[in-house]
Amino acid sequence: MSSTEFHFAVEKRDDQSHARLGRITTPHAVIDTPVFMPVGTAGTVKAVPQEQLAELGAQIILSNTYHLYLRPGHELIRDLGGLHQFIAWRRAILTDSGGFQVMSHQGLRKISEEGVTFRSHLDGLKHFISPEKAMDIQMALGSDIAMAFDECTPYPSTVEMTRISLELTSRWAARCRQRFKSDRQALFGIIQGGIYPELRKLAVDKLLPLGFEGLAIGGLSVGEPKNAMYDVVALTANLLPDDGPRYLMGVGTPEDLIACVAMGIDMFDCVLPTRNARNGCLFTSRGKLIIKNARYARDEGPPDPSCRCYVCRHYTRAYLRHLYQAGEILSAILNTYHNLYFYLDIMQKIRQAIASNTFGECKRTLLKELASLV
Amino acid sequence: MSSTEFHFAVEKRDDQSHARLGRITTPHAVIDTPVFMPVGTAGTVKAVPQEQLAELGAQIILSNTYHLYLRPGHELIRDLGGLHQFIAWRRAILTDSGGFQVMSHQGLRKISEEGVTFRSHLDGLKHFISPEKAMDIQMALGSDIAMAFDECTPYPSTVEMTRISLELTSRWAARCRQRFKSDRQALFGIIQGGIYPELRKLAVDKLLPLGFEGLAIGGLSVGEPKNAMYDVVALTANLLPDDGPRYLMGVGTPEDLIACVAMGIDMFDCVLPTRNARNGCLFTSRGKLIIKNARYARDEGPPDPSCRCYVCRHYTRAYLRHLYQAGEILSAILNTYHNLYFYLDIMQKIRQAIASNTFGECKRTLLKELASLV
Repeated sequence: MSSTEFHFAVEKRDDQSHARLGRITTPHAVIDTPVFMPVGTAGTVKAVPQEQLAELGAQIILSNTYHLYLRPGHELIRDLGGLHQFIAWRRAILTDSGGFQVMSHQGLRKISEEGVTFRSHLDGLKHFISPEKAMDIQMALGSDIAMAFDECTPYPSTVEMTRISLELTSRWAARCRQRFKSDRQALFGIIQGGIYPELRKLAVDKLLPLGFEGLAIGGLSVGEPKNAMYDVVALTANLLPDDGPRYLMGVGTPEDLIACVAMGIDMFDCVLPTRNARNGCLFTSRGKLIIKNARYARDEGPPDPSCRCYVCRHYTRAYLRHLYQAGEILSAILNTYHNLYFYLDIMQKIRQAIASNTFGECKRTLLKELASLV
Repeated sequence: MSSTEFHFAVEKRDDQSHARLGRITTPHAVIDTPVFMPVGTAGTVKAVPQEQLAELGAQIILSNTYHLYLRPGHELIRDLGGLHQFIAWRRAILTDSGGFQVMSHQGLRKISEEGVTFRSHLDGLKHFISPEKAMDIQMALGSDIAMAFDECTPYPSTVEMTRISLELTSRWAARCRQRFKSDRQALFGIIQGGIYPELRKLAVDKLLPLGFEGLAIGGLSVGEPKNAMYDVVALTANLLPDDGPRYLMGVGTPEDLIACVAMGIDMFDCVLPTRNARNGCLFTSRGKLIIKNARYARDEGPPDPSCRCYVCRHYTRAYLRHLYQAGEILSAILNTYHNLYFYLDIMQKIRQAIASNTFGECKRTLLKELASLV
């Protein structure tokens, strides 16, 4: 552990599952886990001012190295005091390394041992990112938690392709660890290995000795069947050190969060609550609500009768439907606020339940609610 | 005066100009004048939640009859308890009659004595709005202040065209007054007459006897030279009754507000602060700031160093530029908040100055500040 200001401690364990209550200490925030991190790709959680994020109780948000590198540039952000200062967010930030975004550019990128050459989605200009550069960028950004630069193995991939990919990721991980020097930033490694148990084990074996402050499970939620995802999470979480935080990248639905907490996951991020909000899909305690549906045109009820967020206390489904139909910005603002409240509230309930030895009951209740139709 | 819950009183007059401090009482709010009304066309002031509007000190907002009639429909809004209830705004609302919007549909509308046939900008379907229908819609919406249905005379128009147009508007005004019945809503008439002093006078003479609770000056800010606009406002304001509110429609810049308050105007609305915000133009005490300019890329200062709004207290020009360049929703949110704060703050300063007999000095200071370059 090279970062002196980063600590993780398990505070309590559930008797009936692998769920655990923990606490991550970073220079900018103490984060209670299990935690959901809202995604703020380009230095803003879309449609939510930082004041409201804090009001929602977010202790940590995720930003994206690839996007910030391209615009406005990591050197500009460094010169202006780092990402926290630049975006006026005083709590913790995790930066994704950009590996996932770079790899997503099918046909626009070329992978070599050295790194990845790709074209910007903004202007088509060529860029090259190596593991070292990904570290330099994240050191410039000054996030509390940086991520190693990995190759996100696509789904489906053969066992051989997956092995080759994870071995590259492992060599890159060593180069990342070598390059990354910071007293105020932690570095997490990323476990790849697709849907193959033996390869997930191999990836853990390769990354463990590198001494990352935390380990993430990557390469999931990329098209594989839900059961395969759950199997890999259960298996991999079990292989990860008990005394370090376990981060499941890019997952998932409220049901996924609950299920994966039970498998021992501590950290989550996902665009679902924010992206779905902009597309008019609200998460509620009674399942998903597609606000554009005509049935809500005259519905005077709140989006979620069980929710205490300001959107549910003040606005009706009829008004939210109108805003969505009219393409109004307020639609994105209110829907996003509610969905983030919903996600963060679920995590809060989960933490309280683990603390009070009622996680099993909490899990059953939440899953039953989520399965009901609005 | 048929509305029993509507009152206007002049509280104080400036010695050196026609500026006056007043108070409008409506069922939903007591409004200190001179007042600026943020524009919430489709039942939302774009990019601002109602909580923030209240926090900004807005006592009254404007909504648009034409837009709400087309979507979601005035009957739906009436059935759901009226516009205040529908949009969850507890303070006052003024509804524009839709005349301006209908007239703007060049080539899509046909005007007759009876009313206007036009095609919806949403789906191309034919609609007909008469003065009576415009009143019925506004009664269904339940706004605190409704506007008579008028023909907004285009600029330029010959004196003869303008006379014919204002005479139609006057006949329509009488039909509006006749139709409009409400104890909780006031009805304002609209003075047309283009840039012709004698026609403005004629319009006032025709509308005065109808007993509107307030009178608005319409047909300005439609392309005429600024001096012509000022001349018409000065002349017309002087013709309007001293004991009723005077509303200048669709005007204007901060400079316009200051100048027209001095001419005796009590109420303003304009899309400038909100629309400009979305286009990256910020109003500041040192003039307009075009946030996309490269010179702000590394500017760590607040948008307006003299401003106390939360945007200026928390965010930098560099960040606001980044948000604009990245097309982020937060750009519209923060820029709009600041611009509305700026407009409402100017009105607050104006009211305080009139109250303390320093309006002349306040006017000079504000205009000097606004003329300086950022």
